[in-house]
Amino acid sequence: MTMQQQVKELVASVLQKAEAAGGLKSVYLVACGGSYAGLYPARYFLDAESTCLRVAQYTSNEFVHVVPKGLGPNSLVITCSFSGATPETAEAGRVGLEHGAQVTALTAREDSPVARNSSRQIFFGLGQEARPSSSSICTALRLAAELVQQTEGFPCYAAFQDALEDKIDMAVSRARAHVTRRMEKLAQKYQDESLYYVVGSGASWGAAYCQAICMFMEMGWLQSSAVHSGEYFHGPFEVTDQETPFLLLLSEGRTRPLDERAQRFLEKFSKKLIVLDAKELGVSVIDKSVAEYFCPVVFGEAARVFSEELAKVRKHPLNIRRYMWQMEY
Amino acid sequence: MTMQQQVKELVASVLQKAEAAGGLKSVYLVACGGSYAGLYPARYFLDAESTCLRVAQYTSNEFVHVVPKGLGPNSLVITCSFSGATPETAEAGRVGLEHGAQVTALTAREDSPVARNSSRQIFFGLGQEARPSSSSICTALRLAAELVQQTEGFPCYAAFQDALEDKIDMAVSRARAHVTRRMEKLAQKYQDESLYYVVGSGASWGAAYCQAICMFMEMGWLQSSAVHSGEYFHGPFEVTDQETPFLLLLSEGRTRPLDERAQRFLEKFSKKLIVLDAKELGVSVIDKSVAEYFCPVVFGEAARVFSEELAKVRKHPLNIRRYMWQMEY
Repeated sequence: MTMQQQVKELVASVLQKAEAAGGLKSVYLVACGGSYAGLYPARYFLDAESTCLRVAQYTSNEFVHVVPKGLGPNSLVITCSFSGATPETAEAGRVGLEHGAQVTALTAREDSPVARNSSRQIFFGLGQEARPSSSSICTALRLAAELVQQTEGFPCYAAFQDALEDKIDMAVSRARAHVTRRMEKLAQKYQDESLYYVVGSGASWGAAYCQAICMFMEMGWLQSSAVHSGEYFHGPFEVTDQETPFLLLLSEGRTRPLDERAQRFLEKFSKKLIVLDAKELGVSVIDKSVAEYFCPVVFGEAARVFSEELAKVRKHPLNIRRYMWQMEY
Repeated sequence: MTMQQQVKELVASVLQKAEAAGGLKSVYLVACGGSYAGLYPARYFLDAESTCLRVAQYTSNEFVHVVPKGLGPNSLVITCSFSGATPETAEAGRVGLEHGAQVTALTAREDSPVARNSSRQIFFGLGQEARPSSSSICTALRLAAELVQQTEGFPCYAAFQDALEDKIDMAVSRARAHVTRRMEKLAQKYQDESLYYVVGSGASWGAAYCQAICMFMEMGWLQSSAVHSGEYFHGPFEVTDQETPFLLLLSEGRTRPLDERAQRFLEKFSKKLIVLDAKELGVSVIDKSVAEYFCPVVFGEAARVFSEELAKVRKHPLNIRRYMWQMEY
């Protein structure tokens, strides 16, 4: 069974079970760190495309401590953790089940606490399936699109499936090839920088957040912050100068004007601007009506290449940690 | 008429008008920068306390470009801008009206674009009313509590009103007196720092965001980033060392365990940790059942004192700007 068939059946089954509670009303997206970022495009999608589902995203431990009053038999909790071992996310799943909610776990590991604390599981990122189209972002987007399609219909469903079928995989592999040489050079140029702002919008705010907290802070021990392109002019832009590096994710789709406005300003006042343009990265193979939702997948790959090249010149491998895996905390 | 009476009547009128469209279904909180941060506690409140309203928060320009499909006659758009002059927020109000939604503007200025592009207005922060209880945070919280009270009932409504009546004003004025001497000393100690992480949770993530993007970045030209206490251990904590300053907002209420966990870690691995503890700042005069929602008001004041003292020793007044008010962008 393909992942798409599996997700389709899973959603049908969730909706059927929720019938007894008056129908599905709320969707809670719950995860931590990189997985939180992975769920963000699905949240952005549901906020934009659903007219009937209540949607909220929580970092797992906040969900555990501030159980929303709306959590119950008419809720779906979507937890996400690649390893399935994130304790707060496993606990969030348990809390969901305890309140009678349906819990769908997105994880790579069947024998994991996150998988155990759920009523249904989608295993992603495994073996042959480890393509971008089965990343956490795409798996959560699949689920979100299917939820809208089966509740009220999603007019761009066919284009969305087409993107997931193979176009996103193609786009990501081309994006990597396209940027590698450029990123090698940029890593040389930027090797002594200690701080990066990552600017993005729409679904790709999730990619900006992931690049800031996972790639730069966690894996590079570099100072970083994700800034929404729409918020940039309302405070953050005052730190712009010739010395401060900015990585701008220029999305394809409806929020591109927000990114372009930040780009125009940064090109004028910053000498250290790196632009990743979704158009140049090949997102255009995906139908315009849904391309924006897939930009974060492509940005994630391209920005990762920058971090990989930085890791080489800085001699700071991406897999070393000061605290994580080293101690209890 | 008190602000509370005004908000009560406004919500009754919103709900009555929405009846014709099948009842109020969605609430969109839309603003930029400091006003976005001001609306955040209301969003957190509605996510936690409402079981029927769909809630989403947008930075204004994203709302304008990605009009959610749920926007219509059964939606309430809450826009917020102190000056009422923020173009993106005025445009968001216009988009709301164009789609048949009810738009309530929170602003200080009657003759402003944001006020004009709305169906109802609440004027806050004016003259004698310029107390914390009529700040953007409290005004939005009033509206949110009233929405829950009049749709499904809010069990802690009386305690909430009691906090808004005078306790929050008392707490904020005491907090300022309580921290001033300490902040003078800290500003001396930290005067040469160029970067601050601001860590917080719950409703106070909004205060962390405001302190980072408005007080540090915009007004201090200092590098900064807001980090959710629950996310800290999932990436950001790897930048923790003896040299990096952290400002931790230790909330009262359900998310305090998240903040305390970050505190324990930071006390061990950071030499530059500033803790603002809501308990010590006097939030405890507010009933425990609702205190967490008001923490951001108290943190906003106390952290502002730090920025004011920093401004003095750094000889960088809070009202100077490089770009804002200086040019078109």
